[in-house]
Amino acid sequence: MNDVGIGLLGFGTVGAGVVEGLQRNADLISRRFGCRPVLRRICDLDLDSDRGVVVDRSIMTRDAQDVINDASVDIVVELIGGTGAARELTIAAMKAGKPVVTANKKLLAEYGQEIFRLAAEYNTDIFFGASVGGGIPVIRALRDGLSANQITGIRGILNGTCNYVLTRMEQAEMPFAEALAEAQKAGYAEADPTLDIDGWDTAHKVAILASLSYGFCVPLESIYVEGIRNLAATDILYARDLGYRIKLLGLVKCNGASVDIRVHPALVQHEHPLASVHGVYNAVMLTGDLTGDTLYYGQGAGRNPTAGTVLADIAEAARNIVSGSGGRSAALPGSDSAMPLSDINDIQSRYYLRLMLPDRAGVLATVASILGKHSVSLASVLQKEQYAAGCVPVVIVTHRNSEAGMNAALQEMAQTGLCDADGIVRLRIED
Amino acid sequence: MNDVGIGLLGFGTVGAGVVEGLQRNADLISRRFGCRPVLRRICDLDLDSDRGVVVDRSIMTRDAQDVINDASVDIVVELIGGTGAARELTIAAMKAGKPVVTANKKLLAEYGQEIFRLAAEYNTDIFFGASVGGGIPVIRALRDGLSANQITGIRGILNGTCNYVLTRMEQAEMPFAEALAEAQKAGYAEADPTLDIDGWDTAHKVAILASLSYGFCVPLESIYVEGIRNLAATDILYARDLGYRIKLLGLVKCNGASVDIRVHPALVQHEHPLASVHGVYNAVMLTGDLTGDTLYYGQGAGRNPTAGTVLADIAEAARNIVSGSGGRSAALPGSDSAMPLSDINDIQSRYYLRLMLPDRAGVLATVASILGKHSVSLASVLQKEQYAAGCVPVVIVTHRNSEAGMNAALQEMAQTGLCDADGIVRLRIED
Repeated sequence: MNDVGIGLLGFGTVGAGVVEGLQRNADLISRRFGCRPVLRRICDLDLDSDRGVVVDRSIMTRDAQDVINDASVDIVVELIGGTGAARELTIAAMKAGKPVVTANKKLLAEYGQEIFRLAAEYNTDIFFGASVGGGIPVIRALRDGLSANQITGIRGILNGTCNYVLTRMEQAEMPFAEALAEAQKAGYAEADPTLDIDGWDTAHKVAILASLSYGFCVPLESIYVEGIRNLAATDILYARDLGYRIKLLGLVKCNGASVDIRVHPALVQHEHPLASVHGVYNAVMLTGDLTGDTLYYGQGAGRNPTAGTVLADIAEAARNIVSGSGGRSAALPGSDSAMPLSDINDIQSRYYLRLMLPDRAGVLATVASILGKHSVSLASVLQKEQYAAGCVPVVIVTHRNSEAGMNAALQEMAQTGLCDADGIVRLRIED
Repeated sequence: MNDVGIGLLGFGTVGAGVVEGLQRNADLISRRFGCRPVLRRICDLDLDSDRGVVVDRSIMTRDAQDVINDASVDIVVELIGGTGAARELTIAAMKAGKPVVTANKKLLAEYGQEIFRLAAEYNTDIFFGASVGGGIPVIRALRDGLSANQITGIRGILNGTCNYVLTRMEQAEMPFAEALAEAQKAGYAEADPTLDIDGWDTAHKVAILASLSYGFCVPLESIYVEGIRNLAATDILYARDLGYRIKLLGLVKCNGASVDIRVHPALVQHEHPLASVHGVYNAVMLTGDLTGDTLYYGQGAGRNPTAGTVLADIAEAARNIVSGSGGRSAALPGSDSAMPLSDINDIQSRYYLRLMLPDRAGVLATVASILGKHSVSLASVLQKEQYAAGCVPVVIVTHRNSEAGMNAALQEMAQTGLCDADGIVRLRIED
């Protein structure tokens, strides 16, 4: 059985998981991979910390070139993260003709075009299964399982921090700040949770999924991104009473001519499979023209789940080396041209509105008339008990309307002085 | 771009779906597959029926050898089903050095050993992604996504007919026979539904999943199989009140030393992701030592979903042809030896019991004392209202107990004459 040499760049949490996986499941991995993966070099600036795994000190180095240039290293595993050294070293490895396995969503989402072009140019492989969904093989499902499908939709709960916060806000009926603090205490949120909470982590992931689906690199800045920072527990509870759960979704919809990509909180019906994804779990629903809806669920982050996917990528790279078929499938299955991306103002959606209105006669009539004027048709209206002195919440669920019409209606409503912009909550419903 | 020739054996529902998929998504498929799959021959005994797709009559034949021996056919797609001609032709194609794509669960479950051995001997590929889960890429997840994991558990809703019947029994509170008749009318159940209803279809699928997980062919006859034919709507409703849904599950559990494989109805908590799988949908939860729980959900049958997976397998075979890497991964990733399979009597489980007891004093004490004698410890006991004259149902949920102890207790209970064997319902709870 062939040996295949592995070089690790970055010996942090996931790196230690990869090493432990290789050690723990060595026999099984060799049998399944059809070759024996041997850890040849590890690079990290910190050579001394205890990672809970035993490695031969002689294979460790602080110089990444030692890994890339080592003739016995066949596959380079990039687990540094970010887009500085990670990008340079990924490119250097590919130029050296070595396949790269990475879990780096930021690198792919921001520099995918360059990385994919170089992979094709140097006829080498880049695998990035763990960049989206951690332990969930959703990149694989998209690349392989649904390879004959036109992808018409993607709906993903792609950020465990946000999903944990939203789950706790509903279950414990606590405000956002309190749920976030709890997530931080439990190690489910970073000290600076901005990237997660404001939706950017989800945007990176959805950009990668959309790029793979349509064969062109989706520019991050063209994605509409709205996070969960401003969500009120009140709306989570009202939504629950209406039969919905609020989730931060990464959404992709394609009608064949243009692609609508966005990230925002959305109401999802209790019966929808995404509604039962709780806590730090992630799930992605992929819709294909042949296969229909398929859902993939699991741990979207964490040492061992992520390491499991990195190891599966190593297996694929190793098989290609052993069978001499590197680059057998394009990293980004090509397309002839980029499709136009929809503007958020052009979408159609159902909406949940909560308006904080003065408690006096005629107010609801004014609201209904403004909505009607902008062709916003209502599915249900519910006036709640007084919330604060003189102020009643009115919860409205609309039929399908245009975002532009809804914007115009809400703007006019704010202008009437009935309620200021702070008194208007608007959330999209994802059916 | 290379052409890769496809030969189809069997032009039924799924075959027509494959042809339609190839036609409809031709450009996309060529770009993604890295080659152009060209339909070269179709064999079927019926050359005349309208399948809703247009094919050149000149490529059709009644003689399967025309397909296998055609030099322009690079990949043989077996969609005949069964284990007669399908087995012979699959073997003939492999002996001719041609990779085979099949959706035939029966063939794999019954003749896997022979098929896998021949694939290795002739260094060719056999892909069978659509044999389990239809459109759900669960075989791929097991082979590729979780390739570095020890598989510790599999829990699958693998039969759409049964899941539809169970869903309707709960939702419409109807008896089994009525729900089955409805399923047949809707085209979700065969005229002879035995294989589905009695659990054998699920057993075939779970045998394939277990074989892939542990690297040896699981003999079908060693699987404990219990179907849903005798389920009473009463128990489905009692289970619902207790917070459970009853599902027909294919189960695999491995402790590293032995494997427990079985098919039976089981109570699943409402909060468990498998509980929200309704109607004809299928779902499989795969548990790996690194990745933890992952779930795969979608349409487990049907023309287009199944065709989508067959086409994905064709893509894999085609890439291997183009890159000259046929047989790059073993059809059955090998193991050194078969693991022993657990006997159903040796399992541990929680149980749901419904006992139809005479409505008189002291009866419950007798029951409790018999259960206690056999070390069956109770989690909850609920005596329901009179059901029929003089007869009250007592619903018991137990803690984890041995199947053997439970059997002994139920046998002793039947001997007391308190209730006959028909008056005892015992279902397993899957946590």
